Amino acid sequence: MNDNKNSTGGRLAGRTVILTGAAGNIGSYISRSLLRQGARVVMTGRSREKLDAFIDELVAEGYDRAAMVAATGDCADPEVCRQIVATAVEHFGEVDVLINNAGAAGPKRTLRYIPFSNAEKRALDENQTMYESAMNLLAGPWHMVRATVPHMSVGGSIINVSTIFSRTRYFGRIAYTVPKSGLNALSLGLARELGAGEKGIRVNTVFPGPIESERIDKVFAAMDSLQGQTEGTTSSEFRNLMLIKQPDDNGTMEYRYPTPDDVASTVLFLSSDDSRSFSGHGFEVTNGMQVPTRSRSKLVSWPDDRLVDLGGRVVLILCGSDIDEAMVFAERNIHRGATVVMGCRTLDALGYLRARVQELEPVAIQVQHLDPLRPESMERVFQFVSDNYGRLDGVIVLPATPNGQHGYSLSTADDDDVAAFVEAEVVAPVAFASSLTRKLASWKPRRTAPQVTFITNPDDGHGNLLNDIKRAAVEELIRVWRYEERHEDDKGHWGWLNVPNQLVRFDNNEADNLAFAADWTATLNNGVRKMDPIDLWVPKSIRRATGKSSMPLSIQRVLPGLHR
Amino acid sequence: MNDNKNSTGGRLAGRTVILTGAAGNIGSYISRSLLRQGARVVMTGRSREKLDAFIDELVAEGYDRAAMVAATGDCADPEVCRQIVATAVEHFGEVDVLINNAGAAGPKRTLRYIPFSNAEKRALDENQTMYESAMNLLAGPWHMVRATVPHMSVGGSIINVSTIFSRTRYFGRIAYTVPKSGLNALSLGLARELGAGEKGIRVNTVFPGPIESERIDKVFAAMDSLQGQTEGTTSSEFRNLMLIKQPDDNGTMEYRYPTPDDVASTVLFLSSDDSRSFSGHGFEVTNGMQVPTRSRSKLVSWPDDRLVDLGGRVVLILCGSDIDEAMVFAERNIHRGATVVMGCRTLDALGYLRARVQELEPVAIQVQHLDPLRPESMERVFQFVSDNYGRLDGVIVLPATPNGQHGYSLSTADDDDVAAFVEAEVVAPVAFASSLTRKLASWKPRRTAPQVTFITNPDDGHGNLLNDIKRAAVEELIRVWRYEERHEDDKGHWGWLNVPNQLVRFDNNEADNLAFAADWTATLNNGVRKMDPIDLWVPKSIRRATGKSSMPLSIQRVLPGLHR
Repeated sequence: MNDNKNSTGGRLAGRTVILTGAAGNIGSYISRSLLRQGARVVMTGRSREKLDAFIDELVAEGYDRAAMVAATGDCADPEVCRQIVATAVEHFGEVDVLINNAGAAGPKRTLRYIPFSNAEKRALDENQTMYESAMNLLAGPWHMVRATVPHMSVGGSIINVSTIFSRTRYFGRIAYTVPKSGLNALSLGLARELGAGEKGIRVNTVFPGPIESERIDKVFAAMDSLQGQTEGTTSSEFRNLMLIKQPDDNGTMEYRYPTPDDVASTVLFLSSDDSRSFSGHGFEVTNGMQVPTRSRSKLVSWPDDRLVDLGGRVVLILCGSDIDEAMVFAERNIHRGATVVMGCRTLDALGYLRARVQELEPVAIQVQHLDPLRPESMERVFQFVSDNYGRLDGVIVLPATPNGQHGYSLSTADDDDVAAFVEAEVVAPVAFASSLTRKLASWKPRRTAPQVTFITNPDDGHGNLLNDIKRAAVEELIRVWRYEERHEDDKGHWGWLNVPNQLVRFDNNEADNLAFAADWTATLNNGVRKMDPIDLWVPKSIRRATGKSSMPLSIQRVLPGLHR
Repeated sequence: MNDNKNSTGGRLAGRTVILTGAAGNIGSYISRSLLRQGARVVMTGRSREKLDAFIDELVAEGYDRAAMVAATGDCADPEVCRQIVATAVEHFGEVDVLINNAGAAGPKRTLRYIPFSNAEKRALDENQTMYESAMNLLAGPWHMVRATVPHMSVGGSIINVSTIFSRTRYFGRIAYTVPKSGLNALSLGLARELGAGEKGIRVNTVFPGPIESERIDKVFAAMDSLQGQTEGTTSSEFRNLMLIKQPDDNGTMEYRYPTPDDVASTVLFLSSDDSRSFSGHGFEVTNGMQVPTRSRSKLVSWPDDRLVDLGGRVVLILCGSDIDEAMVFAERNIHRGATVVMGCRTLDALGYLRARVQELEPVAIQVQHLDPLRPESMERVFQFVSDNYGRLDGVIVLPATPNGQHGYSLSTADDDDVAAFVEAEVVAPVAFASSLTRKLASWKPRRTAPQVTFITNPDDGHGNLLNDIKRAAVEELIRVWRYEERHEDDKGHWGWLNVPNQLVRFDNNEADNLAFAADWTATLNNGVRKMDPIDLWVPKSIRRATGKSSMPLSIQRVLPGLHR
């Protein structure tokens, strides 16, 4: 028995850990590190065979078989997660540490070519659709947390392994980085919710950079090829973000990737009591890659109406289930002269909207059915816009569901809420953006791309934990989308630049919030100002920040009965 | 020999560590933790007696005397720092880890009562002036780094122990938190500079929260008493920022302070190779206190001139040595109707400014000598404003020194540069603000406080490492100042609210930068808009963000010859 490998006095002696993706690239290093420090480890993986082989390998290396339990299955299925936890409890009792490490790479395609249906997935020879990737990378860890928390010990530690690329422009990887970005917000939300609970569970996020391995070279080479650029370009771009040089085998100093051991040592720190005072914290295992946590700015002026003229311009609004709110966005754009097409995701909403609009005749708001998860629906609306106007100047994407629709809690949300939320608020925005950019690419009516603006819900009065997951996912979608567009433009493939934004409304509780956000969409649709920060936050006090009280439109003249 | 305490196989076996403040409250825990893991530790402290007694204590506990070396002296003296490093090298050779842990609490006074001169210090029975506190907390670690780097090993680790309060509103503690905030920026700047060097030295910052000890109870009780509020208020305010509850001795879950052990375990992680992939990173040992890293927003509009009328208003400009730049701020405020008083820090600058202003007759710019480090100078200018106008509406504080004055490097700056920079750009803003708020308190001409706006230098073309230290220090000055003002106002002592801001210019390289910043001072001096984010950043592209090209003033009509 190798004493070093079965440390009864180790830093995790007597601790029970669930580690997902235990036999994977980084997972195998984490497994060894945990076992070396005396932990009992429940190891999960999707392939029983791979997991068993890995455990045999560990036993052959001298690790104690009794400290390991294998549990197989796909964590995207919440029932599987509950079985994994049941296995852990059965073998070892309470769970002290949960490490959400598993996660597939997702389809490596630019926004336009991400597969959403199984048919597209097969045609592209990919392993996952966007939906499957989001379920794997975001819903999976969420399910694991919900299943584990009831069986965790006081002071338990949850470690979510994200990626630094969830905060960068990662070409062709929206299907990976958008759900991971949602995971970052989930992680902080869980830290808020669980730390205050009677178990004082702490939740932290690890952000590995590109990790030294054969795999990362292939990934970056594929990315270079996807971008049609010299091999090594992507790699050196990311190395150039690093702060620390390290010696290579010959002692020459260079920017190098962190190693799987670096990730494992950080996870070990977070698994042990050494880190018991950390929660809601990010640990960047990146050799100091300088990547901002957010791209945001506060909006501190009302739009200058003299500069906003939407006469002759066409604005498409993708409504959520709050039709009244959508009508205010329509109203504020119409008031500046825009022609508005409103798309509803459901037939119910469509019926309600039609009734609302009919009251307003003779104002011409075009109403369409538009389900972002069905490309044919997008196709039809786009054809309508093309046939009738031949142009599209602004697109406003409202949240699918209002506050409270999926509850307010992350850890006690039920299976259906998690899946429905991820589909409606993480997958659907990507699907819509993908369809839109495909259509625009084939359309190219003129050199200016439409301004696309995503809108969040207002304050939910419960800490906005779900709203922030959506905020994070869409922020990353926009970040990569902008980058891919710029790349297409640089290559001359595209001919225009799209600079989408997100208006974040949930930090402000004032009555003016809605009008202010709607006016800003009109300003952005005007196309004169480009806001480089992705997230534009409505300030806590609009009056204070702008020096002006609200600017009510005398919209009644234009749309009698519409103003509320 | 206690094997546990002299671990030859420890995580720091064979490593040489310099630890400042080794016998202090937290330092003593760090010392034990380092020694337990096999490090050789050079322990510093200002009192030889205290240090010797601590070492005796450690030896009595079973730690190896041969692993410890004492080095006494005040790190505010760069010569002392070089001696400490020489001692380390003499005993143990190359240095692997530098832990800047030492730091005194500084005078616990609100802005108005911080002592700047020795006379004030004695009168208030304080141990330090603001200058001494800044030299101790900011220049000291800086000196230690400069002294140590030439003797560090490849991959060496520098750990700067800051405080989470450097990012909070910490009542009555400007003398402590402002230099500490500067230290945070120094730390990141050093990470940038040293990581790229041939030693690949990494630099990280630890942010302890309030640490469980008798001392913190006294500190918070004193803070409550200073604020005239119920004992326990400060403590519960900070506990309420925490995310994780922890069990007390009876198992009851409550928000508790982190312990010195929590800090020591984090410092140990950062001292060991387990953290070799971290640099430029902050580690918050706070039980998850939710404290934003920055208070910032981007400015995305030109001021709306229709809303800016400074007719009859008085603006005071504290000039730095760039008089031409100061003249643009004057011009842009005068154009909107303001009466401007310009104060120069040196007699040289005063002479040049007088000549410039004389060319402009009959425009009435009042020119005064104004050295923020001399209260009598402030007194005289304030009296002048009071006698001649009876009001003060805006105050613009320009940086004392232009880019390059103290070089561009942090690690190779010389002793004089460090001391001069800290005095001119960290101490002087506090001194100016302190004098100003004292004068205003005695003056109270009307309910509205003047808008105070600090300005940074433009881009220095070398990464703005020094500019960012100033930015960080002034940001924290403003944060606590605002908070103290609000408190005075709430108590009815004050009668007005001051909401200072800082315009950060170094992220933008455009020609419009200066005019844009100057116009914003006019907007803020107008007093209608209150910008809650402290730092207002000039956006990378003004044209892009605002949708307008520059707005040149036809100032020639007003001030012939002034426009440049």
